[in-house]
Amino acid sequence: MTDTTSVTAAAEAATPGETDAGLLSPVRAGTPVERVVGDRAWVQAMLDAEAALARAQASLGVVPAGAAAAITDTARAELLDPRALALAARETANPVVGLVAAFTREVAARDPQAAEYVHRGSTSQDILDTACMLVARRALGPMRADLRRAATALARLALHHRATPMAGRTLALHAVPTTFGLKAAGWRQLLLDADERLRRLVEDGGLPVSLGGAAGTLAGYLEYARLDTAEADARPGTRAYADELTDAFARETGLARPALPWHALRTPLADLGAALSFTAAALGKLAVDVQTLARTEIAEVEEAPVAGRGASSAMPHKHNPVLATLLRSAALQVPPMALGLTQSLLSEDERSAGAWHAEWELLRECLRLTAGATHTAVELAEGLRVKPERMLHNLGLTGSRIVSERVAAVLAPHLGKAEAKRVLTDASRLAGERGCPLATALMTFPQVADHLDGAALTALTDPTAYTGAAAVLVDRALETGPAAAR
Amino acid sequence: MTDTTSVTAAAEAATPGETDAGLLSPVRAGTPVERVVGDRAWVQAMLDAEAALARAQASLGVVPAGAAAAITDTARAELLDPRALALAARETANPVVGLVAAFTREVAARDPQAAEYVHRGSTSQDILDTACMLVARRALGPMRADLRRAATALARLALHHRATPMAGRTLALHAVPTTFGLKAAGWRQLLLDADERLRRLVEDGGLPVSLGGAAGTLAGYLEYARLDTAEADARPGTRAYADELTDAFARETGLARPALPWHALRTPLADLGAALSFTAAALGKLAVDVQTLARTEIAEVEEAPVAGRGASSAMPHKHNPVLATLLRSAALQVPPMALGLTQSLLSEDERSAGAWHAEWELLRECLRLTAGATHTAVELAEGLRVKPERMLHNLGLTGSRIVSERVAAVLAPHLGKAEAKRVLTDASRLAGERGCPLATALMTFPQVADHLDGAALTALTDPTAYTGAAAVLVDRALETGPAAAR
Amino acid sequence: MTDTTSVTAAAEAATPGETDAGLLSPVRAGTPVERVVGDRAWVQAMLDAEAALARAQASLGVVPAGAAAAITDTARAELLDPRALALAARETANPVVGLVAAFTREVAARDPQAAEYVHRGSTSQDILDTACMLVARRALGPMRADLRRAATALARLALHHRATPMAGRTLALHAVPTTFGLKAAGWRQLLLDADERLRRLVEDGGLPVSLGGAAGTLAGYLEYARLDTAEADARPGTRAYADELTDAFARETGLARPALPWHALRTPLADLGAALSFTAAALGKLAVDVQTLARTEIAEVEEAPVAGRGASSAMPHKHNPVLATLLRSAALQVPPMALGLTQSLLSEDERSAGAWHAEWELLRECLRLTAGATHTAVELAEGLRVKPERMLHNLGLTGSRIVSERVAAVLAPHLGKAEAKRVLTDASRLAGERGCPLATALMTFPQVADHLDGAALTALTDPTAYTGAAAVLVDRALETGPAAAR
Amino acid sequence: MTDTTSVTAAAEAATPGETDAGLLSPVRAGTPVERVVGDRAWVQAMLDAEAALARAQASLGVVPAGAAAAITDTARAELLDPRALALAARETANPVVGLVAAFTREVAARDPQAAEYVHRGSTSQDILDTACMLVARRALGPMRADLRRAATALARLALHHRATPMAGRTLALHAVPTTFGLKAAGWRQLLLDADERLRRLVEDGGLPVSLGGAAGTLAGYLEYARLDTAEADARPGTRAYADELTDAFARETGLARPALPWHALRTPLADLGAALSFTAAALGKLAVDVQTLARTEIAEVEEAPVAGRGASSAMPHKHNPVLATLLRSAALQVPPMALGLTQSLLSEDERSAGAWHAEWELLRECLRLTAGATHTAVELAEGLRVKPERMLHNLGLTGSRIVSERVAAVLAPHLGKAEAKRVLTDASRLAGERGCPLATALMTFPQVADHLDGAALTALTDPTAYTGAAAVLVDRALETGPAAAR
Repeated sequence: MTDTTSVTAAAEAATPGETDAGLLSPVRAGTPVERVVGDRAWVQAMLDAEAALARAQASLGVVPAGAAAAITDTARAELLDPRALALAARETANPVVGLVAAFTREVAARDPQAAEYVHRGSTSQDILDTACMLVARRALGPMRADLRRAATALARLALHHRATPMAGRTLALHAVPTTFGLKAAGWRQLLLDADERLRRLVEDGGLPVSLGGAAGTLAGYLEYARLDTAEADARPGTRAYADELTDAFARETGLARPALPWHALRTPLADLGAALSFTAAALGKLAVDVQTLARTEIAEVEEAPVAGRGASSAMPHKHNPVLATLLRSAALQVPPMALGLTQSLLSEDERSAGAWHAEWELLRECLRLTAGATHTAVELAEGLRVKPERMLHNLGLTGSRIVSERVAAVLAPHLGKAEAKRVLTDASRLAGERGCPLATALMTFPQVADHLDGAALTALTDPTAYTGAAAVLVDRALETGPAAAR
Repeated sequence: MTDTTSVTAAAEAATPGETDAGLLSPVRAGTPVERVVGDRAWVQAMLDAEAALARAQASLGVVPAGAAAAITDTARAELLDPRALALAARETANPVVGLVAAFTREVAARDPQAAEYVHRGSTSQDILDTACMLVARRALGPMRADLRRAATALARLALHHRATPMAGRTLALHAVPTTFGLKAAGWRQLLLDADERLRRLVEDGGLPVSLGGAAGTLAGYLEYARLDTAEADARPGTRAYADELTDAFARETGLARPALPWHALRTPLADLGAALSFTAAALGKLAVDVQTLARTEIAEVEEAPVAGRGASSAMPHKHNPVLATLLRSAALQVPPMALGLTQSLLSEDERSAGAWHAEWELLRECLRLTAGATHTAVELAEGLRVKPERMLHNLGLTGSRIVSERVAAVLAPHLGKAEAKRVLTDASRLAGERGCPLATALMTFPQVADHLDGAALTALTDPTAYTGAAAVLVDRALETGPAAAR
Repeated sequence: MTDTTSVTAAAEAATPGETDAGLLSPVRAGTPVERVVGDRAWVQAMLDAEAALARAQASLGVVPAGAAAAITDTARAELLDPRALALAARETANPVVGLVAAFTREVAARDPQAAEYVHRGSTSQDILDTACMLVARRALGPMRADLRRAATALARLALHHRATPMAGRTLALHAVPTTFGLKAAGWRQLLLDADERLRRLVEDGGLPVSLGGAAGTLAGYLEYARLDTAEADARPGTRAYADELTDAFARETGLARPALPWHALRTPLADLGAALSFTAAALGKLAVDVQTLARTEIAEVEEAPVAGRGASSAMPHKHNPVLATLLRSAALQVPPMALGLTQSLLSEDERSAGAWHAEWELLRECLRLTAGATHTAVELAEGLRVKPERMLHNLGLTGSRIVSERVAAVLAPHLGKAEAKRVLTDASRLAGERGCPLATALMTFPQVADHLDGAALTALTDPTAYTGAAAVLVDRALETGPAAAR
Repeated sequence: MTDTTSVTAAAEAATPGETDAGLLSPVRAGTPVERVVGDRAWVQAMLDAEAALARAQASLGVVPAGAAAAITDTARAELLDPRALALAARETANPVVGLVAAFTREVAARDPQAAEYVHRGSTSQDILDTACMLVARRALGPMRADLRRAATALARLALHHRATPMAGRTLALHAVPTTFGLKAAGWRQLLLDADERLRRLVEDGGLPVSLGGAAGTLAGYLEYARLDTAEADARPGTRAYADELTDAFARETGLARPALPWHALRTPLADLGAALSFTAAALGKLAVDVQTLARTEIAEVEEAPVAGRGASSAMPHKHNPVLATLLRSAALQVPPMALGLTQSLLSEDERSAGAWHAEWELLRECLRLTAGATHTAVELAEGLRVKPERMLHNLGLTGSRIVSERVAAVLAPHLGKAEAKRVLTDASRLAGERGCPLATALMTFPQVADHLDGAALTALTDPTAYTGAAAVLVDRALETGPAAAR
């Protein structure tokens, strides 16, 4: 039998080094989210749920106000030992049974009467699911602030470089010119998309309280409510009380009211998984682009030089794009983990024997890695160094073959579209073989020379003059999103 | 070099048996979605995109109206051979290059002038991404209709059985009573949640056209627009034309206008993946519950008996829950595939060399399996047989231990919560060992007998009297959702 | 710049509650693996790699023996602060740079000369990858021992119940009889399959050292070897030294020698992921079967009663199958995480900017959850209570329809196979409707009565007499595997 | 009720365009694997299993030899309509029930007696699982041949370029020099690793027949064997017959004998998933490296120019790395799908209601995409163009900062390791800012000038002289693997 004494006594407490202090997860090590989603924060959130429940019941007159106050006053994570709770959790497959026992003792030590009202009518899943939502909400706020801050930095880059020409690249090769502003506006758009998906979680419907009692019928809450109401004619009707208790619990926690108890209807977890997965992967796009542009041969951007950052243990000359690397590490981890959360929708019965239990660590990791990534993205976006001269240099690498599309278009009315394309294919190959500008190669084709002279060709093959609507697309994109962006 | 002649000649056409005619995917074999997402449908959607583009350009005066009409008239999938296009696609890594060649020939055969205006200024990804969105929209409509129809059937069940008592089960064991109506209302809620997530795809922002040209700058479109506008002073300004062309293309396809060209900003695909994954997994919850309740020992529901359905090749007595089995097969396949779509957010550059190409079949499978599942869910929900008498029988299996929570609550004011729980734990064990009702076992405990007599205990341990707020939760839940549900 | 002083000073050390002390992961909380894969263990493994490298170099005469000894003596994790290393790791995207700095200071404080030989010629990835393999090997040993111990317990069950009849179930319904022994033998087989897949990791080829230097050419090691060899004519040849150093490093770590430096050839990680994923999911099969058989209505097995274990916070009568629940929670988490490890095969260049970094935490979690699960499986298998009388009871639930296949076979020679099956289908339906034994229903069919009398039918429809080769299959299966199993 | 007449009549046969003719999957469209894993091939494999079963039973004297011969002669896929079987499969959740009915009719039309012996004692899963293994084996052979052929091509490249210097790149930046041969040897190693993992599937233990009967006890087979043996004393004993039938079935199919019937022990599917996932992802490494090296700015390799291949619909100058793109598209799809196969290990009971059904299409897709990828890899490897002069050019881009590690090593004995690294860090920064060679920058540091003169520095900073053991590592690696490689 679990010696629940240990739950407050820390007898077997691990040191951080023996479990996980972040050593293998630099994307989040030391970032603010760690305290928000660490074990102590979960204990606090579970205690917050217990306290909010007692206050909700008190507000409906079925728990004495003094008891609710004592419970609320005692609901402090520092009184409990997360490690001991973890060890106790093996016996019951969840940490709430041990937490309720330990918390009840703490309340009893202060107010023995109040101890009777701890977890009254409740069930482990109501407390843990509600704690999940509290932890998630606390993590989502800073995450969204980071996304908007990074988006603002990218908006500045986009605006500043709205017309800075660079090579557009498709399937790894130079395609046609674009501008760096358009690229930055695209990154920003993905961050805003992520922010919007996180916003929906907290605002549309919102993260809900979990309140169902043992099997989702609220029966235990109702039973205690009847028992705890002295006057028979004051006893609550089922419908009214079910509604009122859920409303009161939602009010006390600041969470939303669900359509139904959701012990086995895991929409909130699946939604969190999807939105966090999106966010991490969206930041991954920023990361892979920065890494590509930072390549030694390309060198169009680099991360801000910070003393010691990006150093290598072996190579003194390196200034690694470490922030992008951290972002990508999160982008590769979160989506598979979030898949586990979606799969928990297949929760059998009124509470799954395993699918529920698989969610907790997956959710924590998704929150922690994604918030670590948003924090990192701010640093990356705010410090990114852009090198227009390198962009111009690279744009010239193909001797203007990068604008072959344009010349084909100009010749199409004269030669027909298919023939024009064929000529440009041949001329491009020739220019590549000779290492000469495309214009030079084109002049050797009589069909071209008939229609375009050297000057026309030179003008036409200026890559910086073929950025299309890039700049105005940037302007358009910046019209939406956080005000700070403009 | 690809002999593109074959693209319309079907020289190497496979028979369906040689590729995929649905043999291994019974959840969707023969359901309507197959025609909506099959290869021919994709060819049609790509042609629809080409035609819409020509009409959009015509509406802005840069393509002759007659050419747009000829292009539209020729945009019929039956003129092309999907198999030949598939074979040609290996050469360019996407099916659009071959399609444009073959389609241009078909147009040229009808109107040589018009052929010049096929795919004018465009790029493969604009056509394929737009086709993706068209196919998705065409599949989502029936999917949503199925979800609402299944939800309506479940609402009927929920209403009819709002107070039909049955065992609530947690961690595989009887927990406390619930009602079948509450369970059905929960299934319905998940289907409505799925419908809402699909609705957002098509309504909020909506599935967008893809229009960016070679690298997302619209440069090719602009170039042709300038060339195709005879009067110099009528030539469109960049901003106006970029806006107008996107708007016109959106109008002609019925799709939404995106914030930016999204060749490498894969929000629409990630969103589709997430919503389809949610839908399939939500149906999986219905499936695992039906399977559990259909178990020989439980036998509380069964699928509608249909001649031949559910038969076994070996066991004549079996009536397998095949519809639930098909649903679950989809629920296990779609989420991992959808993960692939989320991961495509990590698309480098202006067009990824591989991440884009990984999306197409994954999207098709996700659409096909999920729509097969929604179709199957309608059959399952509308035909489900519910057996209240078996529910009542099973509710009695534990000799009322299923209401131990209630007795503990009633005794708590007298004995204290902890002691009351301990007594019930002991009495439950005793009842289990002796095979006697919980009430009988409890009478042997003096602490109990002091407070409750036999009649009181009998009343208190009636499982059908402890369904809490189940019925009113059903009523509440049915107040929202499609009108037909009430 | 990172104040690396803090790396040994623990200035910002988190308490376990602030990061992760196992609260959300009861399947492994408090199990032995935690210390084997915790942050401190990783620090130790990295230090072990550094020390082994120094000794390997010393054995080839390029590092003074005294320096290697001093390095080895100082390679103790308790001298460093994992939390400080974690914080420093953000600056370089991996924990080795900070570890080398801190470790070098520790060595210098003891033997300033030796400090020059720390990490000589090396690179972060050599150390971290080698540490990965050391940690994995340390975790795999106990995991395999657990698997074999659980397999032995299951072998005992299989042998004891080789002929204990129970219902075989397919698609959730009674199919034909089987024996519990065959089921247990199947579980055991999966555990042996898992053990075999883990064995291959450590024995066939085996977990390799990582030794490549900055970009996999060993250039740094060679350079130092030349510099550190005073006599010009004693300087090692490239081939010999490359071979010898790798061999010596393998010898000093006890790991295998790889075919090539594998910084960007991630076979070892992908293999680990696959084998751990297999193991966790194989245990998941055991879990879902135990949960099914433990269902209140089925009640054919239960987990060993242990005081306090399986208790519910709300329902005093429950004895939840918590061990199976823990197993299933791991089985649902590990495979998606392991997917991340497989995907790291797509590591670009000589070292990936992100794919490498995504591996560490995923590997740790896969090891931790899987080893927690194997530990849990031992408890489950050794304590499982089997109830043959319940199996017999359930076997009788269908009035022998469970043997309809057999009767159809017996009638086939007389009626033809198709007609025989049709008769059994009809008789099964009739028996179900009337609630009578299948034999009774069959007697009403003249085609049956012509060939079989009541006594013959009664004998033929005894479910306990139709378990086929179940018992001999058990015997056969137990002939292989660990000796202890027999 | 399913009108099974249609199963052979093709009444509702889809055209390929209406289901899947490969349009969205260019990596495999038109490659040989399509016919090996298409629906018709699965029908053939199921018929092969039925025929092998009849022959196995005939070899044991329980089925007339003539019946087995008739069954074998009729077991031709062209007699059945895969589309009709697909439609029928919805009724029973698997295609075998309909196939047995249709096949029995075909046999009956030829030999009515023999029809009685079709599928005798069998169950759907025995046939479908065995067919799975046959299809897998047929696909694995060519896949392995492709891998070895591509490995041979890579071995040639590795040998030819064993000492061709190029930049080694880590975290996207130039690190230290390596050789192209070492890179090619690494790709080859991964392909050999993949081949080895596929080899284990077919050779160690091998892909097993599935033979269990309705619930894995072989009861149906035994029953028929007893009935079909006229002489009572010739009736087979259970153990002997169970063994002999399994052996005979294995012999007739050429598959292996399993330890136990594996209807719910899904090791073979999980193993296939893991090995195919590994293979596809290993080819993905080749792909991402080729794409990086083919980038316009890097241009160190390109795919073989083939007329029309790699063309763009918009940009005449492009020669896209389409083969690498196809490979990467498979590498992104297969691992998530294979995850679904691993998860099928959680198959409840004696046959899962859904997990089994989720496997078929996932397995087919994994086989098809992976074999398409191996086919593509041969084309890529055999045609790859390598450009040593571009490698040399790029190696010079950093003015020898790429060998900063070496200079630091050389200075370490003079300055101490830490100081030497600091000097190189500073000198590298200076060289970068001034755009001068590292040697020039270093000369401005007195600590350096004290120890190294200009000539020494110039020699020391020659990147082509610092490739370490790259060439000998290549030689070593090529000593193992297919003989053709040398």
